[in-house]
Amino acid sequence: MTPYAAPVRDFRFVLEELLEHGSLALPGFEEASPELVEAVLEEAAKLAGDVWAPLNASGDRQGCTRGQDGSVSVPDGFIEAYRAYAEGGWNGIGVSEALGGQGLPEVVASAVQEMLHGANMALGLCPMLTAGAIEALAHHGSDEQKATYLPKLVEGTWTGTMNLTEPQAGSDLSKVRTRAVPQEDGSYRLFGQKIYITWGEHEAAENILHLVLARKPGAPEGNKGISLFLVPKYLVIDADGSLGERNYVTCASIEHKLGIHGSPTCTLSFGENEGAIGYLVGEEGRGLNHMFTMMNEARHKVGVQGIGVAERACQQAFAYALDRVQGRRGGSECTISDHLDVRRMLLSMRARTDALRALALYCAAQLDVARHAEDEGDRRAAQAKVDVLIPVVKAFSTDQAVEIASLGVQVHGGMGFIEETGAAQLLRDARIAPIYEGTNGIQALDLAGRKLQRDGGAALAGLIDEVESTARALRATPELAALGEGLAAGAADLTAALASVLEQGSDPERGADAVQAYATPFLTLAGHVLCAWQMGRAALAATAARQAGSGDPFYAAKVQSADFAIRQWLPVGRAQRAVIEAGMASLAGFEPRSS
Amino acid sequence: MTPYAAPVRDFRFVLEELLEHGSLALPGFEEASPELVEAVLEEAAKLAGDVWAPLNASGDRQGCTRGQDGSVSVPDGFIEAYRAYAEGGWNGIGVSEALGGQGLPEVVASAVQEMLHGANMALGLCPMLTAGAIEALAHHGSDEQKATYLPKLVEGTWTGTMNLTEPQAGSDLSKVRTRAVPQEDGSYRLFGQKIYITWGEHEAAENILHLVLARKPGAPEGNKGISLFLVPKYLVIDADGSLGERNYVTCASIEHKLGIHGSPTCTLSFGENEGAIGYLVGEEGRGLNHMFTMMNEARHKVGVQGIGVAERACQQAFAYALDRVQGRRGGSECTISDHLDVRRMLLSMRARTDALRALALYCAAQLDVARHAEDEGDRRAAQAKVDVLIPVVKAFSTDQAVEIASLGVQVHGGMGFIEETGAAQLLRDARIAPIYEGTNGIQALDLAGRKLQRDGGAALAGLIDEVESTARALRATPELAALGEGLAAGAADLTAALASVLEQGSDPERGADAVQAYATPFLTLAGHVLCAWQMGRAALAATAARQAGSGDPFYAAKVQSADFAIRQWLPVGRAQRAVIEAGMASLAGFEPRSS
Repeated sequence: MTPYAAPVRDFRFVLEELLEHGSLALPGFEEASPELVEAVLEEAAKLAGDVWAPLNASGDRQGCTRGQDGSVSVPDGFIEAYRAYAEGGWNGIGVSEALGGQGLPEVVASAVQEMLHGANMALGLCPMLTAGAIEALAHHGSDEQKATYLPKLVEGTWTGTMNLTEPQAGSDLSKVRTRAVPQEDGSYRLFGQKIYITWGEHEAAENILHLVLARKPGAPEGNKGISLFLVPKYLVIDADGSLGERNYVTCASIEHKLGIHGSPTCTLSFGENEGAIGYLVGEEGRGLNHMFTMMNEARHKVGVQGIGVAERACQQAFAYALDRVQGRRGGSECTISDHLDVRRMLLSMRARTDALRALALYCAAQLDVARHAEDEGDRRAAQAKVDVLIPVVKAFSTDQAVEIASLGVQVHGGMGFIEETGAAQLLRDARIAPIYEGTNGIQALDLAGRKLQRDGGAALAGLIDEVESTARALRATPELAALGEGLAAGAADLTAALASVLEQGSDPERGADAVQAYATPFLTLAGHVLCAWQMGRAALAATAARQAGSGDPFYAAKVQSADFAIRQWLPVGRAQRAVIEAGMASLAGFEPRSS
Repeated sequence: MTPYAAPVRDFRFVLEELLEHGSLALPGFEEASPELVEAVLEEAAKLAGDVWAPLNASGDRQGCTRGQDGSVSVPDGFIEAYRAYAEGGWNGIGVSEALGGQGLPEVVASAVQEMLHGANMALGLCPMLTAGAIEALAHHGSDEQKATYLPKLVEGTWTGTMNLTEPQAGSDLSKVRTRAVPQEDGSYRLFGQKIYITWGEHEAAENILHLVLARKPGAPEGNKGISLFLVPKYLVIDADGSLGERNYVTCASIEHKLGIHGSPTCTLSFGENEGAIGYLVGEEGRGLNHMFTMMNEARHKVGVQGIGVAERACQQAFAYALDRVQGRRGGSECTISDHLDVRRMLLSMRARTDALRALALYCAAQLDVARHAEDEGDRRAAQAKVDVLIPVVKAFSTDQAVEIASLGVQVHGGMGFIEETGAAQLLRDARIAPIYEGTNGIQALDLAGRKLQRDGGAALAGLIDEVESTARALRATPELAALGEGLAAGAADLTAALASVLEQGSDPERGADAVQAYATPFLTLAGHVLCAWQMGRAALAATAARQAGSGDPFYAAKVQSADFAIRQWLPVGRAQRAVIEAGMASLAGFEPRSS
């Protein structure tokens, strides 16, 4: 597998030239100077490239194993690499200083996440889940719970998990059956089985805190009966974090998966005999709501994860194509990177990855504004954008990541199909991202069925205004005018599709159904247009830099990336308008039958 | 893994109602009555479903192993399943009676191939390579070679391999270095190493005949110095096929691959000490040409293979979606097949698979005409169509097969990522098809750079005329008029793109380069339009059957499939016209750099 070199220059371009370090001016980020941010990116790049990335292929080959006693071994080197991460203070970079973190802006934390996932997605999942647990406790835990559990989670000495899925309760969590029986001391005893628990059992941390959706006896059916519980692997006997006995939660099995072999995916049994000791987090009956408050961020992280893998696929494909001599061009032997069809694949991979990154970081910057802006109106406006952007970042980035990784395999020819090369692993790893943290179909429904309907499309319309403004600026720049035309046409398509989806959704008879049929095509269109928008902005910034005299080839490459994104990639997305407008007659009447 | 039920009804629909059994009327197919064809399909379905399909998952898990002595073990049951196939006479169904086969039309043989690959692609590769060896010897072997080797190959007692690739010679075979040193007795001694040899070593057959590209000492550099040699694993000492000593060809290693684990992919060493004994096949210096004469058919078979895997992915996804209860619709619990977004995925998989199959079988029927028609003009016209269609069938079917298999994973949600489910295997297996037998990029160049340029687009223009004729027939059918509009628009796009590609190709300065940049978008557009055409024809046939009083739900489903293919899928392909017309400025100036 090709070494991973974190794309620090690209991060800096987005942070400095596209986002103009907007987040750094927000209250609470006073210490996050441009110099500090740069230093953080450079240090994270070292950790990712030197420590995590070399374990990616070996971790895939070795995978995880579960011992007879239910203990789980992760691949060689993973524990040390995780500890290097935790000891470096990386686990807390995006966590507020009040909770013991560094309180850096989300844009910076997102960039660091992308690097770590690009280096080693299987390992990156461990802290990703911990971040969810930190969020859950920070928002919904009692003061005592925060004091007891957060410090260790933030420093990474303990890790966290999310226990949602059960065999009969996947996308529909209202079917959760795990029982939580109240005890006299105010604690609970949990009984049940959870599946697909990422890093559900391992020895990389001193303790594991499981956040578990469960139901009290007699609780109402459906969503309202579900509460959130904290179940530590080892009971914590002291507020200083001293550990006591092992709790009654065990790893019953681990899954044999297509990818992310280095990440143990566990079936956890709670309380086979005595019941696992757990503690209510937040309000009774509000477990799903509590989970959903942090799901937005988790979804953003999954999108970023996809981008990390896409970036690594790019690097691997570029390195191979620049090295592999095959065929001739202009009369002499050449590397395959000289063949235009291969170049098309490479530029397609690069342009898409650049675009997805810019959009994900734009979204992260809006998250910063939503949390930190002084003005409430600013916060609300940013949050409205975030709500619309998150399902796009999650679903579109991960769908594209799979395609990009698959193109990476293709660039390698026969070598791509051989596991030793590493390209195939990236495809296998990436393939989970459109599935977990809410399938991409669920994301599309969240966008088209919920987010757009509840504000009548206002937030997205606001974003489209910005797209149009970028299109105008491109048109006003002679050498970018064609990009402006393309982007404007994309914005018009998205506007029309938005009107269509809003109209369908308002139909009292079959609104929900109609929207469901259009949701994925709509999200795909939105993803294309928003990504093209970011690349339009990139083209403007890069052209400005060149006109100001910069000879850095980075800028020329960025303009090519933007040209490809808008003129070669956007048209495919724009076709989704025709798909939506053609209507879904075939779908409504279609009754799937087994063959 | 879901059982595999060969789609016999679908094959019959295409053969009987779309192709109207056209091939059966050709000279030489007198015995291929509709009843016989039906019986053949039913019997093949049993072999595929009952014998081959149950070994698909276990074969993937077990894979192949190479012993210390260089012998290779294939998964349990594979040898017996292969023998059941050979003993059933299946190996010769498409081979002419003169060569000992049954001489059935290619449309029938293709249908059987699809079933076998759908059932077990890894095993299907073994006879697929043998078929190539039969073709090579039948066309280019001496009478003595034919007499000695063909009977055993046709009955399947011996198998064949294709030895083209070497580490430095992949897509560019002019770089082949394997040496063939002439001996006094007219034979040769071969020295060299070949990689990626499918079923290169195994114990399923009594002998293996390796067809090997190699170079005589002193032969010119490049293509012209390459000849084709036959190297048997065991020397044949008698014209009755008695076997003598083991030849000096050994399996040096087998590959650890993303998929098709049950198919041993070997590195073969020829003549480490004494040289492997081989025999010249055909003319000296014409090895590449001899290979290319059979490559067209091999490429068609790879397309069909992709369709087989796509069909199995459909069946698996439909079965899961119809079984998995999750969520509610209309107030009550439902299976996920009731959610319109899932339905969209299922119908997309189904419509695409139907369309790809119809196009591949149309192409097979043209192959039959090209070989068997009485009139030379008819044969030539059919061959011209075949030449254009083959790269589309190969590349478009396999690209789509990967997407269909990936959608199949998505329909399964989290279960899709777990290997036991079987959906992931189909994605892993399918992923090789866009790579081997000429990468899909090579197919696109073959189409846009070679086939279209040499006849000025005449054959494709002829096909587009037929597309337009179907569009007119759809427009004249009130309930299908919208499909007619869509198809006509697709035909117009393809016509425009064809003009564009021909114009680019005729530019004396940069023709080849320009075409290379547009080749893949062009092939994608052509694939979409030609597939939509076939589904238009399917809609007409199904509507006619319904109007004639048939209540068979098969026809209603086919119309829905056609509606989806033309109104929901074709628009995405049509976008490639815009991609081509936007120009490739970004590509020409793009210099890939390592990060």
